Amino acid sequence: MFSSVDTMWVLIAAALVFFMQAGFAMVETGFTRAKNAGNIIMKNLMDFAFGSVVYWIIGFGLMFGATIYGIIGTPDLFSLAPQNPDSTIPTMAVLIFQTVFAATAATIVSGAMAERTKFKAYIIYSIVISAIVYPISGHWVWGGGWLAELGYHDFAGSSVVHMVGGVAALVGAKLLGPRIGKYTKEGKSRAIPGHSLTLGALGVFILWFGWFGFNPGSTLSATGDATIASMSNIFVTTNLAAAVAACSVLIITWLRYKKPDVSMTLNGALAGLVAITAGCDAVSPIGAAFIGLIAAFVVVFGIEFIDKKLKIDDPVGAIGVHGMAGAAGTILVGVFALDGGLVYGGDASMLGIQALGVVSIAAWVGVTMLITFTIIKKTMGLRVSKEHEINGLDVSEHGLASSYADFMPILNDMSINEHDDMVVSAAPVAIPSVSIEKAIPVEHVGIPDSQKMTNVVIITKQSKFEELKEAMNAIGITGMTVTHVLGCGMQKGSTNYYRGVEIEMNLLPKVQVEIVVCKVPVQTVVDAAIRALYTGNIGDGKIFIYNVENVIKVRTGEEGYDALQDE
Amino acid sequence: MFSSVDTMWVLIAAALVFFMQAGFAMVETGFTRAKNAGNIIMKNLMDFAFGSVVYWIIGFGLMFGATIYGIIGTPDLFSLAPQNPDSTIPTMAVLIFQTVFAATAATIVSGAMAERTKFKAYIIYSIVISAIVYPISGHWVWGGGWLAELGYHDFAGSSVVHMVGGVAALVGAKLLGPRIGKYTKEGKSRAIPGHSLTLGALGVFILWFGWFGFNPGSTLSATGDATIASMSNIFVTTNLAAAVAACSVLIITWLRYKKPDVSMTLNGALAGLVAITAGCDAVSPIGAAFIGLIAAFVVVFGIEFIDKKLKIDDPVGAIGVHGMAGAAGTILVGVFALDGGLVYGGDASMLGIQALGVVSIAAWVGVTMLITFTIIKKTMGLRVSKEHEINGLDVSEHGLASSYADFMPILNDMSINEHDDMVVSAAPVAIPSVSIEKAIPVEHVGIPDSQKMTNVVIITKQSKFEELKEAMNAIGITGMTVTHVLGCGMQKGSTNYYRGVEIEMNLLPKVQVEIVVCKVPVQTVVDAAIRALYTGNIGDGKIFIYNVENVIKVRTGEEGYDALQDE
Amino acid sequence: MFSSVDTMWVLIAAALVFFMQAGFAMVETGFTRAKNAGNIIMKNLMDFAFGSVVYWIIGFGLMFGATIYGIIGTPDLFSLAPQNPDSTIPTMAVLIFQTVFAATAATIVSGAMAERTKFKAYIIYSIVISAIVYPISGHWVWGGGWLAELGYHDFAGSSVVHMVGGVAALVGAKLLGPRIGKYTKEGKSRAIPGHSLTLGALGVFILWFGWFGFNPGSTLSATGDATIASMSNIFVTTNLAAAVAACSVLIITWLRYKKPDVSMTLNGALAGLVAITAGCDAVSPIGAAFIGLIAAFVVVFGIEFIDKKLKIDDPVGAIGVHGMAGAAGTILVGVFALDGGLVYGGDASMLGIQALGVVSIAAWVGVTMLITFTIIKKTMGLRVSKEHEINGLDVSEHGLASSYADFMPILNDMSINEHDDMVVSAAPVAIPSVSIEKAIPVEHVGIPDSQKMTNVVIITKQSKFEELKEAMNAIGITGMTVTHVLGCGMQKGSTNYYRGVEIEMNLLPKVQVEIVVCKVPVQTVVDAAIRALYTGNIGDGKIFIYNVENVIKVRTGEEGYDALQDE
Repeated sequence: MFSSVDTMWVLIAAALVFFMQAGFAMVETGFTRAKNAGNIIMKNLMDFAFGSVVYWIIGFGLMFGATIYGIIGTPDLFSLAPQNPDSTIPTMAVLIFQTVFAATAATIVSGAMAERTKFKAYIIYSIVISAIVYPISGHWVWGGGWLAELGYHDFAGSSVVHMVGGVAALVGAKLLGPRIGKYTKEGKSRAIPGHSLTLGALGVFILWFGWFGFNPGSTLSATGDATIASMSNIFVTTNLAAAVAACSVLIITWLRYKKPDVSMTLNGALAGLVAITAGCDAVSPIGAAFIGLIAAFVVVFGIEFIDKKLKIDDPVGAIGVHGMAGAAGTILVGVFALDGGLVYGGDASMLGIQALGVVSIAAWVGVTMLITFTIIKKTMGLRVSKEHEINGLDVSEHGLASSYADFMPILNDMSINEHDDMVVSAAPVAIPSVSIEKAIPVEHVGIPDSQKMTNVVIITKQSKFEELKEAMNAIGITGMTVTHVLGCGMQKGSTNYYRGVEIEMNLLPKVQVEIVVCKVPVQTVVDAAIRALYTGNIGDGKIFIYNVENVIKVRTGEEGYDALQDE
Repeated sequence: MFSSVDTMWVLIAAALVFFMQAGFAMVETGFTRAKNAGNIIMKNLMDFAFGSVVYWIIGFGLMFGATIYGIIGTPDLFSLAPQNPDSTIPTMAVLIFQTVFAATAATIVSGAMAERTKFKAYIIYSIVISAIVYPISGHWVWGGGWLAELGYHDFAGSSVVHMVGGVAALVGAKLLGPRIGKYTKEGKSRAIPGHSLTLGALGVFILWFGWFGFNPGSTLSATGDATIASMSNIFVTTNLAAAVAACSVLIITWLRYKKPDVSMTLNGALAGLVAITAGCDAVSPIGAAFIGLIAAFVVVFGIEFIDKKLKIDDPVGAIGVHGMAGAAGTILVGVFALDGGLVYGGDASMLGIQALGVVSIAAWVGVTMLITFTIIKKTMGLRVSKEHEINGLDVSEHGLASSYADFMPILNDMSINEHDDMVVSAAPVAIPSVSIEKAIPVEHVGIPDSQKMTNVVIITKQSKFEELKEAMNAIGITGMTVTHVLGCGMQKGSTNYYRGVEIEMNLLPKVQVEIVVCKVPVQTVVDAAIRALYTGNIGDGKIFIYNVENVIKVRTGEEGYDALQDE
Repeated sequence: MFSSVDTMWVLIAAALVFFMQAGFAMVETGFTRAKNAGNIIMKNLMDFAFGSVVYWIIGFGLMFGATIYGIIGTPDLFSLAPQNPDSTIPTMAVLIFQTVFAATAATIVSGAMAERTKFKAYIIYSIVISAIVYPISGHWVWGGGWLAELGYHDFAGSSVVHMVGGVAALVGAKLLGPRIGKYTKEGKSRAIPGHSLTLGALGVFILWFGWFGFNPGSTLSATGDATIASMSNIFVTTNLAAAVAACSVLIITWLRYKKPDVSMTLNGALAGLVAITAGCDAVSPIGAAFIGLIAAFVVVFGIEFIDKKLKIDDPVGAIGVHGMAGAAGTILVGVFALDGGLVYGGDASMLGIQALGVVSIAAWVGVTMLITFTIIKKTMGLRVSKEHEINGLDVSEHGLASSYADFMPILNDMSINEHDDMVVSAAPVAIPSVSIEKAIPVEHVGIPDSQKMTNVVIITKQSKFEELKEAMNAIGITGMTVTHVLGCGMQKGSTNYYRGVEIEMNLLPKVQVEIVVCKVPVQTVVDAAIRALYTGNIGDGKIFIYNVENVIKVRTGEEGYDALQDE
């Protein structure tokens, strides 16, 4: 006899947890570079797609089949086992709920391995973790295995899901090595900012939203006063841990980097969510707040440790967020659980079992993933070539010139191809020498000196452009060509941080304004520009003077002086 | 005895309302400039995070504790009051549902104060509104306070949530003053278009989606025929009001600005949602359609009034959408309520009570927020410095060079720092004078006149590029360098509008094509270009001729004429 | 007597299906160009808004009113028919659920007609389909019409919703004709890549999420063991078909285009979802996997067929995804249905009825939409002018200069207006001849030859910039101006594909580095640059040498040699 409310609860939660895939996709692509955006969304889509298939074919049975010595479930190909008559929920509802959880573990890794992993290698990895690695340790905890027997408590998967992903991410990122340019020759970490923190933030909001399926849905029931109270409590503990973690990271980074760091705070909210997942049903709101607070420290110092000490390049911070906060949150159940936690008078036994579970699962995943990634590395290779990495995985792995066709400096053809091109050349072959008597150089000679034309090129700060434009208008100049350029200087600017790493900067955005004058004296233009731009500080800009041989106005065919008159 | 369906209904609704935070974040960041994107998502994230914490600590008690003279609830620190035994829903479910409502009120303000508010000041404000201001007026209506006693009807919060946010937004934006450049010296409003209307639209869809939790979830029950019918009716009224408002704004702007305005129509949908929120349970679908229609007029003319008459700079239109449409929608309950509304034969008493409530709540929020913002202004300051505002709040408030690292005109270092830079210079110090005998100037002298090289620079419309390229190919020129530039002219183009405000434009996107020729006569190039570009209209473009001293092909080391031959 | 769980199930599903509108908006805008982004989100918003209104006014009655000879429902203006006393769900819940379905059918078309349709024409079309065309064929299947009588099985709308949209898309796109530039003069299809595959992918995730309302919600009940089991099964079949289709398209494109194609794989997931919709309740998970597999082939070869053979320009692939996969999925119910399908021993009768229904619905929609679009074309016109299309529909249809103000090559004014501009000119009128004795040309003559200044312009690959910068630093040059340019060459690069269509590319992104030197010998710069850039391959770049007449440093007023000294 099935329960409508129990099944609805689980199915709606499954939909919300599925939607977390969108959150991961946005976080991971937002925190990395535009040239890899297509690759990253493909990895997120395909680990879910392949994961859904292999978890159905084999993983679900390994995780929830009748236990074999507490180690592994009895395989059940294509999840065909008959319905458990005691369950209030159809097996298919359990399958879809567990499928989206399995896919969550798999997808965590794509962020840590972003921007340099072969797509083929990633697909193989994701099949292995969803089909075998995750289901087996999952069986230990949720499938009636040995950790379940010991009383290990991981309600919704701080360790079973997130730490599994985090440890796999650690192994993968370590074996891959850092992205080109991530560390200086001296081993100093360099920031590689993501291409859209806005999309990254959207991803965090989506994940937080999905977590209201992840944690409360793990009651697998909505029946009975205790369960109903628990569902409600889980909403509050989940939300509070995330909120406190975000606030705490904000303050920590404000003190530590002088400014409240955007991407680290986004990671902080996720760390709070990861950490509360194990004990969301077992702690009070106040306990949840403490877990969030601790998760904040874990994620800030954890990410710094991984980045600066271990020198493992994790572009999105997945190891810190899912691995370290997941482990911490699981262990903290032994501290904050209302029933058995240290602070509520429990002895250390619960804490010990939690620690044992964390270590065991981490060891299992670490060893199996090390084997998996090593085999991949030795056979098909794990990492793309240096050239492919520089060009971006979108073009090298997917033949996609860019995920943002219109925003590249590109007109209406597009490519990032680096091989067969020729930038500037003019083919003189077989061009009849038309109109040679009208050739510009000849005419130029004939232009009287009084009509000498000059291009005044002004390069200055973008924020000064409006004043410059007004100054030019004031001396009667209304036409100019404006280009965004980058100025390269040798001084360093003020220190900015990106997730705790200093950002080097010696390419500064500038604006280049070109004014071609004939009768207006060049000196008038120069004087007016200097008046508009002068502040006395370094960076006021420079003015370059070039000779112009001729100017032709297309509409009228006028040349020289005439071509420059007001239209 | 808890109810499964009631609790599920409320919890799922809470998740949906939480997700509205993502909607607000996308609307607010999309409707503002890229240089502030990181700051805006941080404000959205952090007002929810701090709001969740302080509403749990103090706000929930002030709002729902036993009433003290109808004015304020009895404080209940950390929401520890025992479960109400008559409720079918656990207190924790009510807490999370009310938390996400409180956060909605707070977050409305961030849009109106965007692009110029100190981050620290915003955090303080958001704590005050979530902890004290919102809970107290909320108590009046939903906590058993004096307005509830009078029979004031605001089912899901047109006034309690949205107008509270809108009034706070009005006070904040007024005290802040307009953004730099928002008004001309003559006081004329200028449009400052947002950096991604696509994300803004996504935000509107997310908000609309979340509203299906906001309004129907406010039944706080899913039990009994009347409630089930009401839930269903609320879905329809909510959707219809939004749909009619969007259609109406589309038509109004089409007539008023000659074209259907994108951002105003997006605001229109939101205004319909805000307006129906008070009476979504009390009106028929036809009544909802009328409320949507009226909301459309309110939002279009309200936003214009605020922008052009009051000269208050509200970058996203929050005052009009949430404040004015919220007030209007609440009052309109007295007109369209099936039970007691004017058009259904009610007398004016209901309308009077609705108006009284709106005025009272607006006064309460106006006064308390005026005090709050004034204290903030006098102490830590409300607004960033002019320089920080120009540079953008991402870099000045968060040390984040950009939320869109790859899309700035930036290569692989990045900065917007304006102080310590040096654009163009060459340090001659200590460079041994190598190969001086091969120096280019000398060689150039040796290049025969027949090999004179010329750079033909053509500046024209982007839409003409394809034709120009084909014309150049036809005369045998296959190599060119293309740059996006901006041309600055003195004529104004046709009038464009952005949310009712005319857009000035005298920087027009152009394409600059550079062709270096040697043997192809310059005149051939010029003639072909003119044939391709000529239309006889202003804007056909210009051609500039420069002398080139030398050209070197990197691959072969060839110089001059040889360097320009086809590869 | 209403059912809480049934109504909740339907309402929550309605919210999820509504959210698919956001998914469509993101897919359609992401897969098209930035200059039309505002127009596309408006079409998505407004077809839902107008659709909601007209479906309520007339469509719902035509679809679900008492049948008139099995052809059409009895009209019921404003959906005022009394509640069916046998239903466990209020009529208003059914109305909102059916409204979001109707809007889905309408919105499919906007993608296929994107980038060239008059906004007004689109609004008219969307009213016609939502009010009349969709409800009538919908009545045949879901309203008790003649196909329902025959036993036609389309559970959640592969044909009723998706194929209806797909056929309308086919007719509309055919009548419109292809976008400018879509086909070469020889009729070869050219790729026009979308402006944000990231947002496109987000849209796919949102749609997949929403489909967990679309299909399972179509049970219209959550009561009873059979229904509960069916809801659960539908989650699994829906997910598996999508997953298998995505995996299959990945592999097909990998083999066919040599690389796994991003946008086609995204389409593949959607095709799987569309195809399973008809039979999601009737097939086993294994059947669903086969349907996903077949949908993969249908979508890849279907999109190629439409694009390359029929030469119908469907910018987002809607005809293939919704039309062809919808038809295929509906017919495949006759093959894979556990009860009556061919592979489970059924005879061909079910298959025949499925085929009959598909043909009938396609014919109905094809004819009515042909009439509708033809009338629109003959009266107000269907397609914007060539000029408007080139400039983009945002500016021409909505007066919106860009949806991405900050990312156009635009400073702080903006426009895409092509008419009234003047790029480069200097007005000499009425400028007093100030400081003529200090005029630059005169001074330049006075600059000694030893201080000759030269601009070395290096154009090379972006990926070589870091090495070039280091090489310049090594010879003491720390200042340079960097610009993103496009190099145009004649060779084709390696072949890239975008949804099966080869991408032409002869504009390649390049970096242009300008270095002005005075005492550093030009040859030193050239030699160092060649050492840094040389690889021996085509595309190494070129170096141009220009004479500089003068340089002025704004901060100090120094000229010539002095202006170039290190700050």
